[in-house]
Amino acid sequence: MKNIKSRELVSYNMTDKTGFVVTPWEVSGKIDYNNLIKQFGTVRINDVLIKRIEKHTGPAHFMLRRGMFFSHRDLNWLLDKYEKKEKFYLYTGRGPSGRMHLGHLMPFVFTKWLQDKFKAKLVIQMTDDEKFMFRQDLELEQTTNQALSDALDIIALGFKPKNTEILIDTFYSKTLYNNAIRVAKKITFSTIKAVFGFNNSTNIGSIFYTSFQAVPAFLESVRQGKNVPCLIPHGIDQDPHFRVSRDVMPKLGYYKPAAIHNVLMPGLKEGGKMSSSDPSSAIYTTDSAKEVKKKIGSAFSGGRDTVKEHREKGGNPDVDMSYQLLNFLFEPDDKKLKEIYESYKNGDMLSGELKAIAIEKVNSYLANHQKERVKAKKVLEKFLLRD
Amino acid sequence: MKNIKSRELVSYNMTDKTGFVVTPWEVSGKIDYNNLIKQFGTVRINDVLIKRIEKHTGPAHFMLRRGMFFSHRDLNWLLDKYEKKEKFYLYTGRGPSGRMHLGHLMPFVFTKWLQDKFKAKLVIQMTDDEKFMFRQDLELEQTTNQALSDALDIIALGFKPKNTEILIDTFYSKTLYNNAIRVAKKITFSTIKAVFGFNNSTNIGSIFYTSFQAVPAFLESVRQGKNVPCLIPHGIDQDPHFRVSRDVMPKLGYYKPAAIHNVLMPGLKEGGKMSSSDPSSAIYTTDSAKEVKKKIGSAFSGGRDTVKEHREKGGNPDVDMSYQLLNFLFEPDDKKLKEIYESYKNGDMLSGELKAIAIEKVNSYLANHQKERVKAKKVLEKFLLRD
Repeated sequence: MKNIKSRELVSYNMTDKTGFVVTPWEVSGKIDYNNLIKQFGTVRINDVLIKRIEKHTGPAHFMLRRGMFFSHRDLNWLLDKYEKKEKFYLYTGRGPSGRMHLGHLMPFVFTKWLQDKFKAKLVIQMTDDEKFMFRQDLELEQTTNQALSDALDIIALGFKPKNTEILIDTFYSKTLYNNAIRVAKKITFSTIKAVFGFNNSTNIGSIFYTSFQAVPAFLESVRQGKNVPCLIPHGIDQDPHFRVSRDVMPKLGYYKPAAIHNVLMPGLKEGGKMSSSDPSSAIYTTDSAKEVKKKIGSAFSGGRDTVKEHREKGGNPDVDMSYQLLNFLFEPDDKKLKEIYESYKNGDMLSGELKAIAIEKVNSYLANHQKERVKAKKVLEKFLLRD
Repeated sequence: MKNIKSRELVSYNMTDKTGFVVTPWEVSGKIDYNNLIKQFGTVRINDVLIKRIEKHTGPAHFMLRRGMFFSHRDLNWLLDKYEKKEKFYLYTGRGPSGRMHLGHLMPFVFTKWLQDKFKAKLVIQMTDDEKFMFRQDLELEQTTNQALSDALDIIALGFKPKNTEILIDTFYSKTLYNNAIRVAKKITFSTIKAVFGFNNSTNIGSIFYTSFQAVPAFLESVRQGKNVPCLIPHGIDQDPHFRVSRDVMPKLGYYKPAAIHNVLMPGLKEGGKMSSSDPSSAIYTTDSAKEVKKKIGSAFSGGRDTVKEHREKGGNPDVDMSYQLLNFLFEPDDKKLKEIYESYKNGDMLSGELKAIAIEKVNSYLANHQKERVKAKKVLEKFLLRD
């Protein structure tokens, strides 16, 4: 089970290194994460760093062990600060453009672990303004409502209002704007054009937007009137925003935020990621047990064409989407996961059996999640920042 | 006295039609207002239109009669609406980048007249964010403080909080931003580049900014939940902003705002306008009587080199800055102004005598203004919009 042993990057169907696109607004093709690390100039997370983290957290979260969080910026600096008793806060976010699926939950599950282990305050930015400006087909009312709906999914993961703030951009835009203009003054159109690939037909709201995503990375410093280190767990696709932010922060007298990057969760179909806009690629947090059964039933399998051939040659768990569901979210126990991996690989376990395990795990998880999601409605307001 | 008789454009030293620049951020050279009308595509205010206004207001304000307000967009449409009992509101603004001078008061004096005559609600936007983003040398705290200081000068003109709102951008940025993003989504960088002459080195806050200046032009429609006509009295240099706004408003379902444009008040020196950054060109609202005396004493004069020559050939009131002070602000009585004009022109009145009249008028005006300005501190908060 190479992912676990070597902490190589999760490699689902990434052998084909032909064209892929990773920007904050588009992810397509088969992503080569090794290439992304080079392209973006981030740093691979290695065993030494994980050991250093474990000194503070105990055994690393499976997403760190298995390489779902595979890259970082300035994590050693952050730990230096932490070890000198300078506590950091966490900042992560969500772009509310469509229904939330399991791939969206993944980084929040990890962030919750970080929060618990480091007893860190967390700010979650929900960018309803961004999604409205970048997506011609969405009205502001839709993205704001989506943000409110997504907040329930996030709260359902067990966050508490005493150390977690949910910042929907349009609910907190006075504070955000009054700080964003300080960032914006330091960023030229040249920079934005180079980093995001914008052009003359880009709307001026989209051009300005990155200054809004920068603010939570120093918001706590503004509030406390002193520099507070910040760690941003985020999908590697959002790195361009924070690359720009990191350039600007020192010019405003703030620390550069540290970051830890996750891969994007593979979708149910061959290649590509879970995508809100493609229901057959994604399991939504509000899917019924029946829908989950049907989706996993049709998901891309690493099995052979016949039972006979499968028993003889074995299946391929690395490209099997049921296996990847267990790997990414639903089987935290490395030993059990390894048993499944090997049993499938040597042909003992059939695709139908692997699917049945995934269906059972996902449905049992979602049954609880959906119950918690309903309860979250009662406490939602306590999390929301409003100005 | 050709300005009054023919309602020609105020022509102070505009015979030289060589290079001049008029943008919302730069005004330099000798402005050719006829040329600007063509360049910007606005409409000259003529006698027919003034008569139509006078049906509702009685005798036109001297700034309208004398051509200080010389150009417009959609004023006839606005009056059509008004005559069908669809009331309009007024929107004007101020960019708080430096000390306020008499040239800044001028449009507010006229706006007050419009407000009184049409019983219109008025929104005054003070763009502390703009000045911060466009001026490398200014901090946000400075422009916000300047806005608060300028608000006192505006209130001192006699505005009442019951029908006047002062909107300092950073005090009301939640409402502004949440509406500005709707505007911004409809404006491409191409448009902004063409209209404002921006380029790759422009900062992204400046690029976004025009969407903030657009919002007060439909704010009342947002609040009332129905379309409310809007008239914007403003310096012709701000026209590029509203040209863009007028394109976008119908796309959001709002009326295009109508506009009425003033020329920029001439400075005390030969050519050019009053400029905050050049103390010898401007009389500030807070100048002492002694400073005023000194400044007008040194102001550019249309007089001859010697008394003898002046008596023989007469002076030139059109280029005389003391005369222009009376023309622009301090001698509302056309008959009296005409007497001064002719007496100076035929050599009866000497430059010293003309300066003495201007000094007396300005100082008596400022004595009262400064008293009102102090009183304004007590009511300032009642005018301010905060969200």
